[in-house]
Amino acid sequence: MARTAAALIIGNEILTGKIQESNMRELAAELFALGISLERVVICRDDVDVIAADLADLRRRYDLVFTTGGVGPTHDDVTHRAVAQSFGRRLTRVPELELLIRTALGDRCTEGHLLMADLPEGATLISSHEVRWPTVVIENVFVLPGLPKVFRLKLPGLREHLRGDEAPFLSRAVYTLCDEGELAKPMAEVAARHSDVSIGSYPVTDRADYRVKLTIDGTDPHSIERAATALRAFIPRDKLVEMEE
Amino acid sequence: MARTAAALIIGNEILTGKIQESNMRELAAELFALGISLERVVICRDDVDVIAADLADLRRRYDLVFTTGGVGPTHDDVTHRAVAQSFGRRLTRVPELELLIRTALGDRCTEGHLLMADLPEGATLISSHEVRWPTVVIENVFVLPGLPKVFRLKLPGLREHLRGDEAPFLSRAVYTLCDEGELAKPMAEVAARHSDVSIGSYPVTDRADYRVKLTIDGTDPHSIERAATALRAFIPRDKLVEMEE
Repeated sequence: MARTAAALIIGNEILTGKIQESNMRELAAELFALGISLERVVICRDDVDVIAADLADLRRRYDLVFTTGGVGPTHDDVTHRAVAQSFGRRLTRVPELELLIRTALGDRCTEGHLLMADLPEGATLISSHEVRWPTVVIENVFVLPGLPKVFRLKLPGLREHLRGDEAPFLSRAVYTLCDEGELAKPMAEVAARHSDVSIGSYPVTDRADYRVKLTIDGTDPHSIERAATALRAFIPRDKLVEMEE
Repeated sequence: MARTAAALIIGNEILTGKIQESNMRELAAELFALGISLERVVICRDDVDVIAADLADLRRRYDLVFTTGGVGPTHDDVTHRAVAQSFGRRLTRVPELELLIRTALGDRCTEGHLLMADLPEGATLISSHEVRWPTVVIENVFVLPGLPKVFRLKLPGLREHLRGDEAPFLSRAVYTLCDEGELAKPMAEVAARHSDVSIGSYPVTDRADYRVKLTIDGTDPHSIERAATALRAFIPRDKLVEMEE
């Protein structure tokens, strides 16, 4: 069985419409390529009790949980405190991180900067070449930053750590000028006959060359190919669009 | 008390990293301007039981719930079925929608197209000038499409429907060249003294003219102004950045 995963995105700035969340797609694509099934994403407020409760729920239900956001030193960065609460642990200053901060900042270092060295007791640190600051892991919870530039840099280092026995997920696409109403009935039959793959149907409004993109996801290339052939078979030839995926 | 809201984003295409979700920011900004507090967003799979369970939870905990996605006619569009299940209602063909589809498509109309006219029993339809297809409402649940172009067109029509007694949320920003470590301690004190507003701190990595954006959210302009003045007071003059918000 493929491992399951969930993500907890922490940040008032997303729930008030100030910024466009953009880390999730990167994480989703990374997990897809690893064969890990991302089942759920929750976006919540910067609130210790809310985060702790969500985390308690998610880490019980899914094999892996990723949090993003709230790991800076300011009053609204409460993720580490919430993670500690969720696991019933205390926050403790990590000497290795304190040294990292003191070395980087020298005389500029303040107690405010050092707050970033306070982690839940027993946290594991994963180092990577790409980012000096390690990734914090507590049991099955990976605590990641919200800043997209830093988040993205952390993914390659995590990849090897996350790789398991799963076959990677693969995806193929079929493009058509049919609309979804025309496709609905025959596609439902194909989907029912090919239950070893997952077939999705996505209309677009901004393209002249096709109207619907059909996707076939799975782990076995032959199963995917068989389902793609079955989909192409019922689409009228003049409405089947050949294009690079 | 301001009403609370949650959103349920339905779609495998988001959880597999195929597309960047973009409706949530629009909805969040809309609710913020109306003074409605968006507390939580959940992204889930195209699975009837999962959607029905999530919806049962969210509509009990929040005043308003918005779903996006899964309202087309294909096999992976299961939102209306899941909403019906969550409310213990049946799906039933709505004559008004059937007529809309038959009129629009004429001879091209198939049973596949008409599947879009099947809604949970007792659903209310909200019409607007911007989109011919009405918005479906069942009690406190608003069922919205996932297609960003259509989603966006629906918001103005919903605005008047959602407007209540709440004062709109307002937001001001203060920009600084300080880093978050320098800001942490004094800002925490300001946040504690100004608990009638919500102060956020957001570092950026892609700007030369400032390093951190501080935001002050609230409903009372005077409270916001007082907190902004208190924040500006502790930032060294040469690190305070004057700019249009």
